[in-house]
Amino acid sequence: MDQLPVSPLKPRMLATLEPVTGLKLATGNSGTRYKGRDDVTLAIFPAGTTVAGVFTKSKCPGAPVDWSRKAVQNGTARALLVNAGNANAFTGAVGAAACQTTAQAVAAAVGCAVDDVLLSSTGVIGEPLEADAISAAATVLAAQAAEQSLEGAAKAIMTTDTFPKWAVAKAGDVTVTGICKGSGMIAPDMATMLGYIMIDAPLPAEWLQSTLTDVAEKTFNSITVDSDTSTSDTVLAFALGGGDAPGDLQAVGAAIFEVCDQLAEMLARDGEGASKLITIDVEGAQTDASAKTIGLSIANSPLVKTAVAGQDANWGRVVMAVGKAGEPADRDRLCIWFGPHRVAENGLRDPAYDEETVSAYMQGDEITIRVELGLAAGQARVRTCDLTHGYITINGDYRS
Amino acid sequence: MDQLPVSPLKPRMLATLEPVTGLKLATGNSGTRYKGRDDVTLAIFPAGTTVAGVFTKSKCPGAPVDWSRKAVQNGTARALLVNAGNANAFTGAVGAAACQTTAQAVAAAVGCAVDDVLLSSTGVIGEPLEADAISAAATVLAAQAAEQSLEGAAKAIMTTDTFPKWAVAKAGDVTVTGICKGSGMIAPDMATMLGYIMIDAPLPAEWLQSTLTDVAEKTFNSITVDSDTSTSDTVLAFALGGGDAPGDLQAVGAAIFEVCDQLAEMLARDGEGASKLITIDVEGAQTDASAKTIGLSIANSPLVKTAVAGQDANWGRVVMAVGKAGEPADRDRLCIWFGPHRVAENGLRDPAYDEETVSAYMQGDEITIRVELGLAAGQARVRTCDLTHGYITINGDYRS
Repeated sequence: MDQLPVSPLKPRMLATLEPVTGLKLATGNSGTRYKGRDDVTLAIFPAGTTVAGVFTKSKCPGAPVDWSRKAVQNGTARALLVNAGNANAFTGAVGAAACQTTAQAVAAAVGCAVDDVLLSSTGVIGEPLEADAISAAATVLAAQAAEQSLEGAAKAIMTTDTFPKWAVAKAGDVTVTGICKGSGMIAPDMATMLGYIMIDAPLPAEWLQSTLTDVAEKTFNSITVDSDTSTSDTVLAFALGGGDAPGDLQAVGAAIFEVCDQLAEMLARDGEGASKLITIDVEGAQTDASAKTIGLSIANSPLVKTAVAGQDANWGRVVMAVGKAGEPADRDRLCIWFGPHRVAENGLRDPAYDEETVSAYMQGDEITIRVELGLAAGQARVRTCDLTHGYITINGDYRS
Repeated sequence: MDQLPVSPLKPRMLATLEPVTGLKLATGNSGTRYKGRDDVTLAIFPAGTTVAGVFTKSKCPGAPVDWSRKAVQNGTARALLVNAGNANAFTGAVGAAACQTTAQAVAAAVGCAVDDVLLSSTGVIGEPLEADAISAAATVLAAQAAEQSLEGAAKAIMTTDTFPKWAVAKAGDVTVTGICKGSGMIAPDMATMLGYIMIDAPLPAEWLQSTLTDVAEKTFNSITVDSDTSTSDTVLAFALGGGDAPGDLQAVGAAIFEVCDQLAEMLARDGEGASKLITIDVEGAQTDASAKTIGLSIANSPLVKTAVAGQDANWGRVVMAVGKAGEPADRDRLCIWFGPHRVAENGLRDPAYDEETVSAYMQGDEITIRVELGLAAGQARVRTCDLTHGYITINGDYRS
């Protein structure tokens, strides 16, 4: 496929990326699939780095997901190897062996235990990974690795992404830096996405894991592009740095949330074919979980997504999507807003609804749909993008 | 919107429609939304007619669904009124009152109890139904009603359908005739679809209800166009005719299944923008229910549907959809066929897989995807259509 045009929803400004203290990085070309760009990334962490991970809930995960899910168990990490172009998924015993081979090569080059090596792969499914080429590249990268910003890594992990994604947040002296990739096959349980969060402070692995799990639920697991869940989804958080643990863990947790939230929004902004970012706020549900289910039902509805693409405040389709979610809802209490404009009130078209004003709002490229259920206090925010001809072209026209 | 081109998947031949003994029909134009076509249908049943119904599981159903769900409780029916163009959904107390008004008009004109009147509406959501105009039309139709085939009714209930849908099956002397409509917002729990099954024999209402429930689960509830569930979905079965009950109820049940199965396939064939009919056969699942969940996960995957549109036997996306279903599956036992061609075997690309042969198969307009899980004996068939630019144009471009 030709190079895709950059998403019109790309954020106008990204944070300035500084090197993460203690983190050594190198990127290169593995000679496997992509030409003329880096497609393999090696990160080397100082001794004492703790790690946490959240992975796809797919029942058919890729081999590197199996590997990394196991490798995070000990709570420590010394290296991360990511390749783009081949997901090493649905590759059977050969795929598991490829993980073993590449992890051993990294461990030998870095001088660490093999179970302190994390692996991620993204790209086509069902093709055997060229483990020797990736291993050779990793060995070269280990010799080149140096302290530098994550910008090169953010670019080397891209597949169909149209822009690299990173975010930074501070909690006192602690800096949280994150990068991620993902564009299609994006759905709860983390999309075809890889995300890496670096924290330049020592943190207990258990705290890091429970924080990452909570944060992922509200960020990466609350976006959807097309409801399809990748076999390779992985988010890893690394806490580097010796010295004292930060005093204010809550502030660090907030910074991790901030970074993941920004990255998740960027994934929706780079959704395949996206012309509008859609934020869905569900309020007044029975529980937060119920609100999220309803939010995802709206966000995954092709009829809602095509209506937004068509700049139509079609609240009938929103009602439909609320109804099909199967969660408690009272038709006659529903209120629906597009941006600041209430279009439906207590189960009826809002009599004050002015179609012209709402139509003007729908021409913007950031649309908020707010649904008030009027039952209890459950709430959730879900982000998605519209469904356009661009999505069909990217995913259906590649053979024609 | 302009008249849509007829689906290329329209069946080449439909059964010959004969009048149903005892059934009086009339169709007309209500003057409410559609011009130059019939949009309101009245069916009058002989005394002693039994009825069964299956309805949308939406938590926000339309008022006529509330009405008919209650009206089928007594097991008897004397009249059915259907209007196309306005769904009378999300219309609050006004919508319920509109049902009362129109049902009373029908009951007065036909000379029956008001709770023997069934109602269906399909069309836009959120607009008050013009109950007086519909009632007036019903009164005129009651005077005109005569024994005739269901062809006119099959046309008068259409909305975005590109062809009328009917099917006929025999069980000895008993004839089962069905009509339905539906094209978009088609998903399990019956799509934006209305379906009416007429049986020219007396049948106990309880038997009819349990048979219809079972049959709907495997037919109308096993198709999907876009995963969106309408607020108005309704299937009603009517058993007309005095005389003796049929001796072989099992054969009648089989004929009801046959009619519903054909109608369900026609709905998928008329899916918005469809260029290919996709039949998904899941075998070897833990249970039939598990097989159906996996089948629907494949059928609802935008990535699978766009791949089929692109004539690509992309089994990686099928693996992804199996994995995201959340049902028991063993990656390393999965086998996948496109038509007669096995492309994946025991979790790996089939070494004998010949891309050219499979590509030729993918150019046909009826594609079968078979997934063998290798776990137990659960199986299901799910039907859908591909996802094309046509779907986006129909659902997203109407304002542009």
